[in-house]
Amino acid sequence: MNTHNRLTATMAAARIARGELTSEALVEACLERIEAREPDVAAWACLDPEHALRQARERDREAPRGPLHGIPVAFKDIIDTADLPTACGSPLYRGRQPVTDAACVARARAAGAVVLGKTVTTEFAGRYAGRTANPHDRRHSPGGSSSGSAAAVADGMVPLAIGSQTLGSVIRPAAYCGVRAYKPTFGLLSFVGVKHFAESFDTLGLMARSVEDLQAFRAALTGGRCGPAEGAGAPPRIALCRTPYWDEVSPRGRECLESAAARLADAGAAVTELTLPAGFAEIVPALWQAVRYEAADALLAERVAGERAISRTMRELLDEGAGIAQADHLRSLATLEAARREIGGLLEGVDIVLAPSAPGEAPEGLQDTGSPTYNALWHALELPAVNLPAGTGERDLPLGVQLVARRYDDDALLRHARWCEARLSPV
Amino acid sequence: MNTHNRLTATMAAARIARGELTSEALVEACLERIEAREPDVAAWACLDPEHALRQARERDREAPRGPLHGIPVAFKDIIDTADLPTACGSPLYRGRQPVTDAACVARARAAGAVVLGKTVTTEFAGRYAGRTANPHDRRHSPGGSSSGSAAAVADGMVPLAIGSQTLGSVIRPAAYCGVRAYKPTFGLLSFVGVKHFAESFDTLGLMARSVEDLQAFRAALTGGRCGPAEGAGAPPRIALCRTPYWDEVSPRGRECLESAAARLADAGAAVTELTLPAGFAEIVPALWQAVRYEAADALLAERVAGERAISRTMRELLDEGAGIAQADHLRSLATLEAARREIGGLLEGVDIVLAPSAPGEAPEGLQDTGSPTYNALWHALELPAVNLPAGTGERDLPLGVQLVARRYDDDALLRHARWCEARLSPV
Repeated sequence: MNTHNRLTATMAAARIARGELTSEALVEACLERIEAREPDVAAWACLDPEHALRQARERDREAPRGPLHGIPVAFKDIIDTADLPTACGSPLYRGRQPVTDAACVARARAAGAVVLGKTVTTEFAGRYAGRTANPHDRRHSPGGSSSGSAAAVADGMVPLAIGSQTLGSVIRPAAYCGVRAYKPTFGLLSFVGVKHFAESFDTLGLMARSVEDLQAFRAALTGGRCGPAEGAGAPPRIALCRTPYWDEVSPRGRECLESAAARLADAGAAVTELTLPAGFAEIVPALWQAVRYEAADALLAERVAGERAISRTMRELLDEGAGIAQADHLRSLATLEAARREIGGLLEGVDIVLAPSAPGEAPEGLQDTGSPTYNALWHALELPAVNLPAGTGERDLPLGVQLVARRYDDDALLRHARWCEARLSPV
Repeated sequence: MNTHNRLTATMAAARIARGELTSEALVEACLERIEAREPDVAAWACLDPEHALRQARERDREAPRGPLHGIPVAFKDIIDTADLPTACGSPLYRGRQPVTDAACVARARAAGAVVLGKTVTTEFAGRYAGRTANPHDRRHSPGGSSSGSAAAVADGMVPLAIGSQTLGSVIRPAAYCGVRAYKPTFGLLSFVGVKHFAESFDTLGLMARSVEDLQAFRAALTGGRCGPAEGAGAPPRIALCRTPYWDEVSPRGRECLESAAARLADAGAAVTELTLPAGFAEIVPALWQAVRYEAADALLAERVAGERAISRTMRELLDEGAGIAQADHLRSLATLEAARREIGGLLEGVDIVLAPSAPGEAPEGLQDTGSPTYNALWHALELPAVNLPAGTGERDLPLGVQLVARRYDDDALLRHARWCEARLSPV
């Protein structure tokens, strides 16, 4: 058994480019790992090993297409792939074969990636859990809704995966599974060809085992149009934000955030504190209402067609959304917009916010995928975020911290994340 | 031959509800009109008369589902329908059968509508024209990209149709064909299940033969969650805006707008003038750049798969978009955002803006679908808009005026549009 599956994508791509590694050997190593571990982790919704190997051999025979040449990538199973079914975590879509690749899949292929397979999602990226377990302890949730994507990257099954976040579905599972993740500013990575849950809030998110990988992955998915990947640079100005939900953070979760702030300050970062205005407590309820309002449209066809084939959890959510008046929805949107304007001023003189990624480590049991609140707060503000592993909790499961930057400041966020990564969670 | 096809949707729905008309007779009348006129107009991308009649008979047998019970509706052929193919105006998708209805189709069905068929779109809702002709003079364009939707409603083939607008693809064809149209504030009608051209700017638009119909159609598509349809009310405060592109408006186009303002003032409206700040001239180029940036992602899979099957016009556009740096894209977004903030203040004390819908009547020939600039200006500001027919041009083809309201002021926009309609273009 080789260990190429443990390489970061950047390292593997460099070895492939130098002729020291083949895509085939890399994909084989990933498939071996999956074979060994999938019975315990259950990260994959759809996997076709022969198809993956065929793609790898093609990459090995041709000139390099781009920065991900020969690198296997996993896609959350709400993302359309022209060569593998896309079931959205629902029996309604079992075996559904899209005609076209989603935009992110087309971009990954154009950059040379191998589509390794589709990773488990909760039902339609909502709250009803899939089969996946936390690879660190299979009695615990991997988080949702990008459960399989986070678990597969954490477990060495694949170096890169794409998930999606509407409230907290990228940063949270990444924190629970102990991987790096990047959730971009709204609108910066195309959501075309991905199943919507709430159209105005659905955002792709990237998972990897180093921030450098996240930078390379992001560049590939923009077709090379984003800024160049930058190294760590000078120590950032950090605002420690305990959020209005600090009381619900576990003792080890609190320690983790405060110790991270202390370590970053010791290393030279200027750390201040940010207390959000009281009105910001309305943000998460407003987002939650807007999400339900939109979900009632986005999933109406499924609600009607699948009276018995969709979960009760989802039916209740959709029926609540169908009962919200547009005037109330507009009030939610106004609340969110006012907070987005206000946060700009609050972040003056700050490079990044440091905040909890989740209230603590992954919950026990596979039905409760954990609280999205800590992510929803920043997500509603349309800010880009990164999760970095930063410690372990009461049961020795991963804890993460969330780095948040200004809207559209994604280049800087990832640069600062590299600086923080080297102090908090070296590769 | 009956003439039920000439009824507005509201009238037809009332007669059906009172048992004076069957959905079957209404659909038959539409199908007869289509049979007679389709060879000249070519509005339909996909039509299955038997399937339409089957739906109508089912509606006639069951209790009323909602406000569109038994009413035939046409959908632009980029909108997924579970019972009819969706080809997006491209040979690449000929015969493609979606698994699920788009959100707007599911909503229309839940309100009792009959899916009459799919209407012609330009290729992927871009600039490459389809086969449709202007029903008023087949040597002239119906406008794009919602060509078939506008032509079908104008020609009495169907009372209601859905199109989409990214720059000017609802208001413009409606103006050229002489129908009422409503383009909502961004995000108020779900785009889920519709093929994207530029994700952040794609918006559904509704077409009908009365503003009352637009109100009823909108209410149905929100699942009854929007405000109630309101009658005309008091005379509105109107800002006449000639736009920075006034020089390009045809002489009859200018007369049309000014005479509309005069008629509305005579009827009691308070008419003032709005001159946009010079910086607003940057809005249309910024939107156009942002649209190309996003289209390069949205249609990458087609660009790669269809080297020979997509038009040269589209390939050039996608390649331009693929060459735009994200930093330049962000500058466009910042330009748009600054203008959106500024327009709020400019519209204080004003209920609606009155502006040209297009530079004049429909251009000759079917390849040039006309200029979207007059719509793109307001569209980029995320404002809702209505087209009302208001006169005829040099060749006796329809001219339209555009009514624009504040963001989220869609209820009021339609109420004011009813007031204006009664003075400019009585049903």
